[in-house]
Amino acid sequence: MKKVDGGILAAKGFKAAAAAAGIKQAGGLDVGLVWSTTPAVTAAVFTQNSVLAAPVQLSKQHCQDHKVRAVVVNSGNANCMTGEEGKQHAEQMAEDTAQLLNIDKNEVLVASTGIIGRSLPIDKVQNGIEAAFEAANDNFAEAIMTTDTYPKSIAYECEIAGKTIVIGGCAKGSGMMQPNMATMLGFLTSDVALTPELLDKALREASRTTFNSITVDGCTSTNDTLAIMTNGQANNAVITDENDDYKTFVETLRQACLDLALMIVRDGEGATTLVTVNVNGAADYDQAKAIAYAVANSPLVKTATGGKTDNWGRIAQAAGTLGLPITEDTLAIKVDKPADDALNITVAVQLGDATATVYTCDLTKDYVGINVAYN
Amino acid sequence: MKKVDGGILAAKGFKAAAAAAGIKQAGGLDVGLVWSTTPAVTAAVFTQNSVLAAPVQLSKQHCQDHKVRAVVVNSGNANCMTGEEGKQHAEQMAEDTAQLLNIDKNEVLVASTGIIGRSLPIDKVQNGIEAAFEAANDNFAEAIMTTDTYPKSIAYECEIAGKTIVIGGCAKGSGMMQPNMATMLGFLTSDVALTPELLDKALREASRTTFNSITVDGCTSTNDTLAIMTNGQANNAVITDENDDYKTFVETLRQACLDLALMIVRDGEGATTLVTVNVNGAADYDQAKAIAYAVANSPLVKTATGGKTDNWGRIAQAAGTLGLPITEDTLAIKVDKPADDALNITVAVQLGDATATVYTCDLTKDYVGINVAYN
Repeated sequence: MKKVDGGILAAKGFKAAAAAAGIKQAGGLDVGLVWSTTPAVTAAVFTQNSVLAAPVQLSKQHCQDHKVRAVVVNSGNANCMTGEEGKQHAEQMAEDTAQLLNIDKNEVLVASTGIIGRSLPIDKVQNGIEAAFEAANDNFAEAIMTTDTYPKSIAYECEIAGKTIVIGGCAKGSGMMQPNMATMLGFLTSDVALTPELLDKALREASRTTFNSITVDGCTSTNDTLAIMTNGQANNAVITDENDDYKTFVETLRQACLDLALMIVRDGEGATTLVTVNVNGAADYDQAKAIAYAVANSPLVKTATGGKTDNWGRIAQAAGTLGLPITEDTLAIKVDKPADDALNITVAVQLGDATATVYTCDLTKDYVGINVAYN
Repeated sequence: MKKVDGGILAAKGFKAAAAAAGIKQAGGLDVGLVWSTTPAVTAAVFTQNSVLAAPVQLSKQHCQDHKVRAVVVNSGNANCMTGEEGKQHAEQMAEDTAQLLNIDKNEVLVASTGIIGRSLPIDKVQNGIEAAFEAANDNFAEAIMTTDTYPKSIAYECEIAGKTIVIGGCAKGSGMMQPNMATMLGFLTSDVALTPELLDKALREASRTTFNSITVDGCTSTNDTLAIMTNGQANNAVITDENDDYKTFVETLRQACLDLALMIVRDGEGATTLVTVNVNGAADYDQAKAIAYAVANSPLVKTATGGKTDNWGRIAQAAGTLGLPITEDTLAIKVDKPADDALNITVAVQLGDATATVYTCDLTKDYVGINVAYN
């Protein structure tokens, strides 16, 4: 595989656009569209939070038959805890987008991100969708940002059955961030051809060790959405079973997801340091990941990793909170600092052979400042 | 019941003392002793963290037969993750204390609090124990402090079978603080007479809704210890069953524990606001408490509660993370601000009739500053 330019527009047959609709208090682009020019096969995963935002409820329905070919997003307002009106607003966003693109409203995925519990200014959103469609620029990655400090885009290409296929995408963070089945918002496009079932499986496999292995503050959003649209314009022979082509695709997709996920962590609210927590010697992957998350989410570990200390007692404390037989005698901790803005923590327990890695960032005064002010 | 002066020395027949032994980097009192002048009946609960500090391992043994009558504490060093040497140091603290008080070393509870993973300067501790014994002052509550900004003491008296009995105590916080069976360190004394079994039960009952219902940063310490020594010097008829006398005792003990627990939260690292999270409509107490803790430990809720916002969407987000059927339609949230330094959050779910209350504080830049610097 090879990294290429172009982000979410790198794959053949996709278009995107963005506009400033006045939804974000701070101003800037806040409505975005991305769509395939031909029919698409799409898979998506959504937050496991039981309090679901209106657009997530709608998009789960629309994604059921894997035929979504357009995404419409607004930032600045999560359209969550907004009652019947919020549901109507999400429907309206799908309808407006479908009309402009001359497709069915069920082929539109709707996503919103921002403050919870405030009525969506639907007039502004509708005007923004129309303005974006007319603008047809390549600023989609910027339009989905909230507290992110820079847009997060990636693209890779790989060879599948003699054809070059491209996977591109973008994502946004950067608080309320411990994705559970998806990141806050992540969108990928590809010109690969494969079956809906395999695309769904590939997305779940790729997100498990990437978007689903990061945390900024341990908080799972009500709006997390990760979707990939594929349109087959690379003209590869359709992938129909888990052969080497499928493996190449998953590997490339995983790399694209990992790059985006690490950008989210590096740009976590107030973050200065990428902290990688490796756990080995666990009974199984889930246990290894639970230990890694306990360490990665400890405020005491997170404040220590940003400072100049090697206060590893806090790592032991965190690893000891899970009710597992992890004691002073069976626990080994190693801390490396490969670069000024990175820290690697390795925690070894004596419970088995499984490993897992979780990525997080430090907890700083700026995180607190941002979240006291953000409303 | 009635609040009285005197703290841990309010009950008849107890003595205490403290000394500055040079263990804390910042200086100040850091070794403390408290003991009953006559044999005592004692109960204690300890941290549920699987990584146990050496003094906790030793004290658990010593408390088994409920005969502990003296407590020795050092602050500034947790004596945790310190190997065989750490165990010997904890033993040495018990032996020195026993020798000075002319009691058995098994009658001594040892506690340490401070940094994890550093060798205890045992010579300094030994000198400190001797100096404290000779000083015989009333500064014990100050000697157990680490990042606390003030000592936390309380005493109540109540009538039991025509006799006035007194319960006094002190505690310390104020980070690595989500006690699980006990606070970081809490010590109570009483001149009541009751059986070891009932004392044990009373302590567990009183701590469940007090020390075990608070959180500063969601981190359960390796050193949490809560103990009560009783010496019967009030001369009440020994309480031997769960009669009205027992209930009066538990009620008074619970009030003393609650007062100390709330002092810990109010003095949480960097805290400006006492946040009370009430949950009602849960299936049972444990579920209600889990929901309350999810809200109380959310960094997004905690940063919002210190600021001027009523960003209650974050409360909904936190309540939705537990895998329970809590949705926009079944969730009701109320936020009151009864005083400048207090905030009450009420979360109603529609799963049953159970309620629980958890106490926490806001997350501020000062919490981060303290924990970046503390090492």
